[in-house]
This record gives sequence, structure tokens and C-alpha cells, in this order.
Amino acid sequence: MTTLTDTPEATRPTSGTTPSVEAARLRTAELEARIAGDPSGFRVLTGDRPTGALHLGHLLGTLANRVRLQQAGVELFLVLADYQVATDRDDVGDLPATVREVLLDYLAAGIDPGRTTVFTHSAVPALNQLLLPFLSLVTVAELERNPTVKAEAADAERRQGRGMSGLLFTYPVHQAADILFCHGNLVPVGQDQLPHLEITRAVARRFNQRYSAARPYFPEPEALLAPSPTVLGNDGAKMAKSRGNALELRATEDETVAFVRRSRTDAERRITYEPERRPGVANLLVLGSHFAGVTPEALAEEVGSAGAGRLKQVVTESLVEGLRPLRARRRSLASAGDEHLREVLAGGNARANEIADRTLDDVLELMGMRY
Amino acid sequence: MTTLTDTPEATRPTSGTTPSVEAARLRTAELEARIAGDPSGFRVLTGDRPTGALHLGHLLGTLANRVRLQQAGVELFLVLADYQVATDRDDVGDLPATVREVLLDYLAAGIDPGRTTVFTHSAVPALNQLLLPFLSLVTVAELERNPTVKAEAADAERRQGRGMSGLLFTYPVHQAADILFCHGNLVPVGQDQLPHLEITRAVARRFNQRYSAARPYFPEPEALLAPSPTVLGNDGAKMAKSRGNALELRATEDETVAFVRRSRTDAERRITYEPERRPGVANLLVLGSHFAGVTPEALAEEVGSAGAGRLKQVVTESLVEGLRPLRARRRSLASAGDEHLREVLAGGNARANEIADRTLDDVLELMGMRY
Repeated sequence: MTTLTDTPEATRPTSGTTPSVEAARLRTAELEARIAGDPSGFRVLTGDRPTGALHLGHLLGTLANRVRLQQAGVELFLVLADYQVATDRDDVGDLPATVREVLLDYLAAGIDPGRTTVFTHSAVPALNQLLLPFLSLVTVAELERNPTVKAEAADAERRQGRGMSGLLFTYPVHQAADILFCHGNLVPVGQDQLPHLEITRAVARRFNQRYSAARPYFPEPEALLAPSPTVLGNDGAKMAKSRGNALELRATEDETVAFVRRSRTDAERRITYEPERRPGVANLLVLGSHFAGVTPEALAEEVGSAGAGRLKQVVTESLVEGLRPLRARRRSLASAGDEHLREVLAGGNARANEIADRTLDDVLELMGMRY
Repeated sequence: MTTLTDTPEATRPTSGTTPSVEAARLRTAELEARIAGDPSGFRVLTGDRPTGALHLGHLLGTLANRVRLQQAGVELFLVLADYQVATDRDDVGDLPATVREVLLDYLAAGIDPGRTTVFTHSAVPALNQLLLPFLSLVTVAELERNPTVKAEAADAERRQGRGMSGLLFTYPVHQAADILFCHGNLVPVGQDQLPHLEITRAVARRFNQRYSAARPYFPEPEALLAPSPTVLGNDGAKMAKSRGNALELRATEDETVAFVRRSRTDAERRITYEPERRPGVANLLVLGSHFAGVTPEALAEEVGSAGAGRLKQVVTESLVEGLRPLRARRRSLASAGDEHLREVLAGGNARANEIADRTLDDVLELMGMRY
């Protein structure tokens, strides 16, 4: 699960577009226009739980969009939410190894540590301390209503038959600390994730009302609706490491070929983009069109009546070619030893600490905690 | 409310001595004997929410016992739980002023900053960060069952008609961080507060099991049953600043005289110590016997049939005389300017940070969060 981007399927709305999604879409168009005009007023916080190497679902769902925002000149903060790995499992696993893999994926995909701050939760105490004042600004009832918390709790219960941890329950407040410590004002989310921002917005609003009424200290961050196609694995279910159906970014060309070969299609000769009726074909069209920079519909048109075999051939070529530079960078970074990766993380952590220390200092001042 | 010592009345058991209290009493006797033999193996964490100047109830309930432990050579940590002031109220008030008052009370009562570490929550980020891993070790159901949380929630609801804050809900985990950051292994509690330690003990145990099985890292702190008489105000209700019935330690002699004069007694001429039947008289006996170093029963015997007037006279003299050195020290400290108080707090915070940084460092290492 990614921290701020991915949603358990249980929380996805079952149908249609709600009015607030429509409003968010309009607002996103405005925001994108402002970013294109002058990106300097925006700061984006997003991130991942480091539970393993990233896959195609991450790339198309979030990572490519982050790189796009970075290239557009928006200041980006990427948190590796290492504490959150413990929200729903007893064993945090080999964190240094998973952090390393995710970091390699970030850098290989184009995240530039010269422009983007990549940091780990555990290395930034002042950010974590913000949890304390922020917890005083939300009620237990609000936390209970949070859709992410609800879905994750049900999931943990179902899979492991155990109660929800306090860490999972308070996760939306930790997320508020992530976003607000750096005064993030934009958070890329999928359309089913709009409710996620509400607690952060409430924390910012209430803090301002209570402790900084004259001049609001925290921004109320806005959602930037991100293109978030549901990428399927080769078994037709949502791509997920835990399902073993994923194509990791670090996979080899042979694995890529095999992944596409095993992917489900259907018997209809003519290729069309119909996600509801033909999910397997639609998924291949999404994957194949991504690097080509065309729409899935255009790719469907191109393949036409040549059938699933031809579609797979096109998609394989597109993925192999499209991922080639990323994989080359990844191999080169991985083989260069860990010194560079450590420096990247140390640099990001230093910058995150500098900002978090300043924010905590301001918050202490505003709350009157100077003795 | 004091953080680790005071309990809302709603949580007080309605009757009798439970077996676990009996066990705790026996264990406390053992622990006191060991402290008398060699205090060097013990570290005590306790503290207060800085909501105002301390009163006689604090002195007899907790403060005198803390000074006793300090004098016995036990290492003491006193946290001024400034974030917790926001658990049940919207306005944290003038924290610098209340922190100053509590600090003056501590020092006047005999807390020696050369031996005891006095610090504020807000100044120790690494302590607060421990909240994150510790929250992953407790379930929401456990927090819901916590008697302090339950009682405080009911209280907040009743008094202010509002839901419980996330900060109050997670308070027992913050308390675990307070106690464990300094490897506290003894926590002075009243007998109705034994359940309070259970979450801290569970956190220590589970952390050790999960991350430090070979050699337990955290101690499972034990309760040191403290003599905790319920001190009543001059209206016969429990002494509390919020009830306006308290005699503050900083009060003048005149105020002390007036406090005793207004205190409730009864019409029975013969003075006896019967807390259930004669709470007003019993309370005066508790107050009067404290500084004399005798039991309330002995004082009752002494007054005998001289009646409530004589009792009040004896209690007034005892309080005025007993509090005189404390008040002299307090006045002298208060008039010497705030520089010394700031130094005391800065020194305590520096020491708390040093210890918290080391503990957090160990915890990161044990959890495998080294990148």
C-alpha cells in the first residue's frame, strides 16, 4: 500500500461520479493551469510505505505523475513511511532492503534528489512530534469515520483476525503531520481518495483558528486529482505485490515478455477499449499506451482487428522499450554500491529535519510553549 | 489532573481491596525494602499536567512522596505534560505561567534539579517519536478499555458536550513513552491507579518480544503503591483547583488560617479518625498529621474531647509551621527572577533529550530502521 496514494478496494465507490469529484476535477484543471504558469507556489507531499520494490501499478498510478510534477517545477516531498509498515503486520521485514529498492525505483523513474526531498519518517522526530498537537484537534469519532481506517481495519481483521492497531487508527493524523510539516498545499490523489484529505484539512483549519487566528499558519491542502488507472496483474486482479501478479519495475526483459504473454485477454478479434466489459484487454491497452504517449483508445484503433496476439506483441514492445532507460538507470545505480543511495537519503532527511524543526518551532511558539 | 498520579473519581473502585491491590501492596513493601538497601537500580517517572499552581492535595498525594524517593537516592524524572493540557480543553491557557508555578512548587517542596530531571513534553521530540512504534503495539480495543480514558472521556462529554480527542484516546501510549524513554522501572501510583500501568507494561513486553527477544530492551515497570490520601477542599469535596476549594502551596498564612477555619467539621465533641463517617474531621486530621509525622489516629487521640475548634487550631498551626520553609523557599525563588527557573528547565530538558535520543536510536536499531 502506498501511504497517500493507494486505496484498499473496499473504499472505492461502487458507482458513478459524485458531485464533489466533479468539483475536484474542475479545481484540478485550474490548479494544473496555475502550475503550468508558475509552479513556485506549490509544494506536494506524497509517498509510499516501503513494503517492497515498486511495480507497473505504482509507475502508472503515482510515480510517473510525481516525476511529471517535479519536471513542471513543483517542489516535491516524498516520504518513505517506514513506521506505517507496522500498522497492519507484526513484522516490519527487512526495511533497509525495501527502502533501498523503493529508492532505486524513485531515482530510476526520474525522481531527482537535487529537486525532490526523499526522506524516511523515522529520521524526522520534529515531524512525528506534530502528531501530539494534531491529535488534540480531532475526535475519536472522526477517526472512526475515516474511510481508509475503516477499510484497512476490516482488511486486517479479515486477513489476520486481529484488532486494529492504534497506529492504523491514528494514521490520518500522522498523514496530516506529513503534509503540514512542509506546508504542503497540494496532494495528488485518485478520485476515490478525496475523503483522505479531510482530516488534514480539518487539522490545518482548527490549528489556525485556535492558535493562529490573525494569520493562518498552515495551508489547507488541496487535492490534485491524478490520473490513476487501476493496473491489473496477469491474473486479472488489481496488480499487487502480495498477489504475486505484478510486473516489478526492476524486472528483466524476459520477465516483461512473460508477464504480457500470461496476461488475460478474451476471444474477441477486434481490439476495443472497454474497461468494464473487457478488463484484460483494456489493461493491456493502458500499459501499452503509457509509454507511447497515446490514449488507450488510439492504441485499440491501431491494433484494430489484428487480435489479442498482435496486441500483446505491441504492448510487449512498448513496455520493453519504455522501461529500458529506467531499467538501465536502475542497474547502473544498483551496481554503483549503496554509498550514493545513502547520500540521497541522508540529504533528504537533513532537509526534512531542517524544515520540520522550523515548523515545530513555530508551532511551539504559536501554542505558547516557550518557557 | 496530574498525568501519572491523579485519577478522576469515576474510576475509583466503589468498594474493598481487590486481590491485585493486595499483591501490589506486598510487592511495594519488597520494593521499598530494596530501595532502602540500594536505590541505584531504580528509576521513577512521574509528573503533572501544568494546569496551575499545586495545592495541598498534590503535596500530600504525590509531591511529598516524590521528594522522599529523591532523598532516598532513587533517580527521578518529572515530566511537565504540556501537550496533555490540550486533551480536554480548547485553550491551553498561559502555559509559561503555569509551568513556572509548578516548577516553583517542585523546587520549593524539595525537588533538587541536581538529582531529579524536570522536563517538558514539548521539548523532547525523540520521546514523542516513540509514540509511533508504541501505537503499533496496542489495539484500539485496548485503548477503549482503559479506565482513565473512559472516565476522562465521560467527563469531557459531560462537562463540555463534546467528543473525546485523539490525544486523550492515545494518552496511555504517550504515558508509555514517558515511562520507557528513560527506562523507568518504578511508577508511584495510588491503589485505584493500578490498571494505568497495564498498557505501558504491555508495550514494553510486546516491544521486547517483537524486536528484542534475545535480550529484553525495555523494563516492564512496576507500580509503587503510594500513600495517596484523598485530600478534601474546604467544601468537603475532593480538593481541586477547578472547584475553587483548594489551599495552594503558594498561599499566604492568612489564607491558610482562613482555609482551615472554613473547612467542614461536625458537631461531635470527641475527635476520631473515621474517614467514611466523618470525612471533614478525618481530612483535617490527615492535613494536621502530615507535617507532624504522626498518624491521623494519633492526632485524633491527642485532640481527644477538645472538639473541632481545638482540632482546627492544631491543624492551622501544623500547616502554617509545616509549610513555612516551603513557602520561604518559594518566595525566595520567585523573587530571584526567572533566570534560575529557565536554567533548571533547560538543564532537565537537555538531559531528557540526551536520554531520549539514545533510546530512540536504540529503538531504530532494534526495529531495523537504519538505512
